[in-house]
Amino acid sequence: MSREQRPRRERRTAGGIKQLPWRNHRNPYSPIQVITEDQLEAIHLASLRILEELGMEFLDDEALGILKQNGVDVKAGSNRVRFSRDVILHHVAKVPREFTLHARNPRHNLTFGGNNINFGSVASAPNVSDMDRGRRPGNFKDYCDLLRLTQSFNAIQFNGGYPVEPADIAPAIRHLDAHYAAITLTDKIWHPYSLGRERIEDAVEMICIGRGISKEQLAKEPSLFSIVNSNSPLRLDGPMLQGLMAMARHGQPVVLTPFTLSGAMAPATVAGALAQQNAEALAGIAFIQMVNPGVPCVYGGFTSNVDMKTGAPAFGTPEYTRAAMAGGQLARRYGFPYRSSNACAANAVDAQAAYESEMSLWGAVMGHANLILHGAGWMEGGLVASFEKMVLDVEMIQSMSEFLQPLVVDEDTLGFEAMREVGPGGHFFGAAHTLARYEKAFYAPLLSDWRNFENWRLAGALDAAQRANAIWKQVLAEYTLPEIDPAIDEALKAFVAKRKEAGGVKAA
Amino acid sequence: MSREQRPRRERRTAGGIKQLPWRNHRNPYSPIQVITEDQLEAIHLASLRILEELGMEFLDDEALGILKQNGVDVKAGSNRVRFSRDVILHHVAKVPREFTLHARNPRHNLTFGGNNINFGSVASAPNVSDMDRGRRPGNFKDYCDLLRLTQSFNAIQFNGGYPVEPADIAPAIRHLDAHYAAITLTDKIWHPYSLGRERIEDAVEMICIGRGISKEQLAKEPSLFSIVNSNSPLRLDGPMLQGLMAMARHGQPVVLTPFTLSGAMAPATVAGALAQQNAEALAGIAFIQMVNPGVPCVYGGFTSNVDMKTGAPAFGTPEYTRAAMAGGQLARRYGFPYRSSNACAANAVDAQAAYESEMSLWGAVMGHANLILHGAGWMEGGLVASFEKMVLDVEMIQSMSEFLQPLVVDEDTLGFEAMREVGPGGHFFGAAHTLARYEKAFYAPLLSDWRNFENWRLAGALDAAQRANAIWKQVLAEYTLPEIDPAIDEALKAFVAKRKEAGGVKAA
Repeated sequence: MSREQRPRRERRTAGGIKQLPWRNHRNPYSPIQVITEDQLEAIHLASLRILEELGMEFLDDEALGILKQNGVDVKAGSNRVRFSRDVILHHVAKVPREFTLHARNPRHNLTFGGNNINFGSVASAPNVSDMDRGRRPGNFKDYCDLLRLTQSFNAIQFNGGYPVEPADIAPAIRHLDAHYAAITLTDKIWHPYSLGRERIEDAVEMICIGRGISKEQLAKEPSLFSIVNSNSPLRLDGPMLQGLMAMARHGQPVVLTPFTLSGAMAPATVAGALAQQNAEALAGIAFIQMVNPGVPCVYGGFTSNVDMKTGAPAFGTPEYTRAAMAGGQLARRYGFPYRSSNACAANAVDAQAAYESEMSLWGAVMGHANLILHGAGWMEGGLVASFEKMVLDVEMIQSMSEFLQPLVVDEDTLGFEAMREVGPGGHFFGAAHTLARYEKAFYAPLLSDWRNFENWRLAGALDAAQRANAIWKQVLAEYTLPEIDPAIDEALKAFVAKRKEAGGVKAA
Repeated sequence: MSREQRPRRERRTAGGIKQLPWRNHRNPYSPIQVITEDQLEAIHLASLRILEELGMEFLDDEALGILKQNGVDVKAGSNRVRFSRDVILHHVAKVPREFTLHARNPRHNLTFGGNNINFGSVASAPNVSDMDRGRRPGNFKDYCDLLRLTQSFNAIQFNGGYPVEPADIAPAIRHLDAHYAAITLTDKIWHPYSLGRERIEDAVEMICIGRGISKEQLAKEPSLFSIVNSNSPLRLDGPMLQGLMAMARHGQPVVLTPFTLSGAMAPATVAGALAQQNAEALAGIAFIQMVNPGVPCVYGGFTSNVDMKTGAPAFGTPEYTRAAMAGGQLARRYGFPYRSSNACAANAVDAQAAYESEMSLWGAVMGHANLILHGAGWMEGGLVASFEKMVLDVEMIQSMSEFLQPLVVDEDTLGFEAMREVGPGGHFFGAAHTLARYEKAFYAPLLSDWRNFENWRLAGALDAAQRANAIWKQVLAEYTLPEIDPAIDEALKAFVAKRKEAGGVKAA
């Protein structure tokens, strides 16, 4: 490193926000069990009965062919298939209990399964908002800025998908620009959409270029993941199935997540919604294992409920929290890695946004989710990616991250000598034990303001949303592009140009 | 009931806010254990060593006499006493594992210990605030309005203390007006302050009049509780000890809560603060049992941490949450009922207020606290009682209350027939199973707004704090005085008048 470079780096460090370091979390606490073993078994049996008696629709001929080859009851001229419990249990038993996703920067590799826990960014919002520019349709500039924030915040460990839809790019080539940005603006795990086979094939080509590896190597070291939502109730559509099959054949994990909104796409009971969620997830995961036995996949829980009077979806409700924890119990019953979310229905970055997200986060963390989607920036039940909400969520994730650090109890931390030094009625501010811990004793927050009321008022009386606004602007201003081999960057650009020239995706 | 009365009652019901019914909660889930059994034992042993080698100061001669009678090492001319572990363990073994507090309205009786869980109002704030009138010193009008809200919200199960200090009443007679208001504006459990013997004696007289019972009956059916904070580190002051002894002699429970703010009044480590908390609580509880063996008491955990740079106290931090859960483990080790809090350091009713309170609530609930003080309305680390925060907290408590309701998993809730009726790709809005549950399927929030963005915007784009403002005003407008026998009311008034005439409290 040359001397000239040093002052700039120092400035960046000095001006940077204070945040926790990158961490690979493990949850040291036992999960909260919200249902009994008998209840778990009852839900398991109900879901097998659903698949045997009601079955599911698979809206893709190739998929129907694979199902038939594997002994599933497929009737000619019908998309409805019925699974015997033996077939389901035989295939889902092949799911690996744990797997690692390989990021472009190996420091950002993530392991799923067991008690590993990973937080991702907001994904798939059609709109974007911030306090300065208001609410607006998704676009490529905001897409890139949200990627830059995802890269900059250590608490956000992976790209959950497109943080916002870059809707100003034509659908046929959108994924090419989106993937290029995800690979180059971040060096963290990213997510291509399972909307047909072609987009997945392009993503596979691009990640192989990005990591400088072959497809064979990629199959051994998966790098991508894709969320597949069943079209609840009891249906998987064609483009999703095509994408899912492409992912599975390349050895890349699919997160099978039924969208069982209780009272709308699932029964108006948590138990019923869970039974349906479990049936859809088991069928999807069994199918993935038929496509490529032993390929990693993840059980996704997304059961929430609607407002019965209006049909409006709600998130972070007590029903949601219990369903997230019960979903973890179901996933663990089969040994599946588990996905949950940080969801909320709030329209503003206010107390509601925080308490709904906390209810979701506690459901996810204490449900032992391994992959927490929509971890940072999700608002309005997924209709908006919010810059300020992203900062709020980073603060809440950091707090969870610290909560997950095991307490150290030893001679030194028990502090007997400090108490002897200070004695009754004294104070510990100046004690040697305190001074030795001055820098790192406690979690230093990103967003919380702990000043007393008078000082807070004199500093402008900014609420948490206003402070979040200043933070994301600072982080964006200080963003630095992660390193990339110029030859790889050129190769990626060339691939994108070639595919655009060819017109991008052909299929609808 | 006459016909004339009916329309008014019906109007009240029709206009009333929607809230959950009164509930006596039990926590059906296993507590989160944040420390191992070995760590628990290490903290236990450290706290016994503190009491043996460092001891505590008891700033009251009568208390020192009682300690000496019970074999504690008290040296003439010194307030410092040292406890052998045998003495501590002998006396704390007498604490009842469970007890019931009897409210003026027996429907509002509360049981502490085991997996019972009870949420109280904000207590002891010197200031009060709301969005219309801003922040101002505590006064009797706001004190009474906060009592009226406490009475009106089912989620607030007891008065945690004075919700705000009625500082416009002279200290010598303040408790008389405050107690009278607590007995008559609410029919829930209330809390007199252990500031000397006289205030407790007045409270005992008044609750006996209020319930129409003798002191003998009161000792069998305790009605009052009082928080006693040790003056951490390692000191109990005279007025607190006098109040504590008066409470214990009348058979009324004391909640012994060390204020172990890590880095200020306790070591700058969670383990050290917990060891000191445990030492102070054990000493205080052992002393209570010396005063009146077998009297109910509660182990209070209030360990949090300061901002090391400024010394500002913080609440709802990850350290706080882990300490709350570890405090529960310590309390359960001895079989004590456990007290925790819903604390936050926020200056505004914003996202910070919500996420810090959620971290505190989850710590309390999953730490199996039985008594959750400051449950509704606490802000700024206790310096303010906020009307809007009270509504926000009621929403968060209601959500917790629903989370604690065990899931029902049976033939009916599993909804197989509903799924058969709806079939793949359909929706459940009109299903018979859904319609049968239309009214009560899911938690209906008090504060959350689930409308879509456009409808929310058209309705004024009110954030959660603004909506809370409208809710407390409505509740206050609809408040109705709980029933009281006019003769009892007269007797209470006469007692207050007599004591005021005598000049109120004589001691400093």
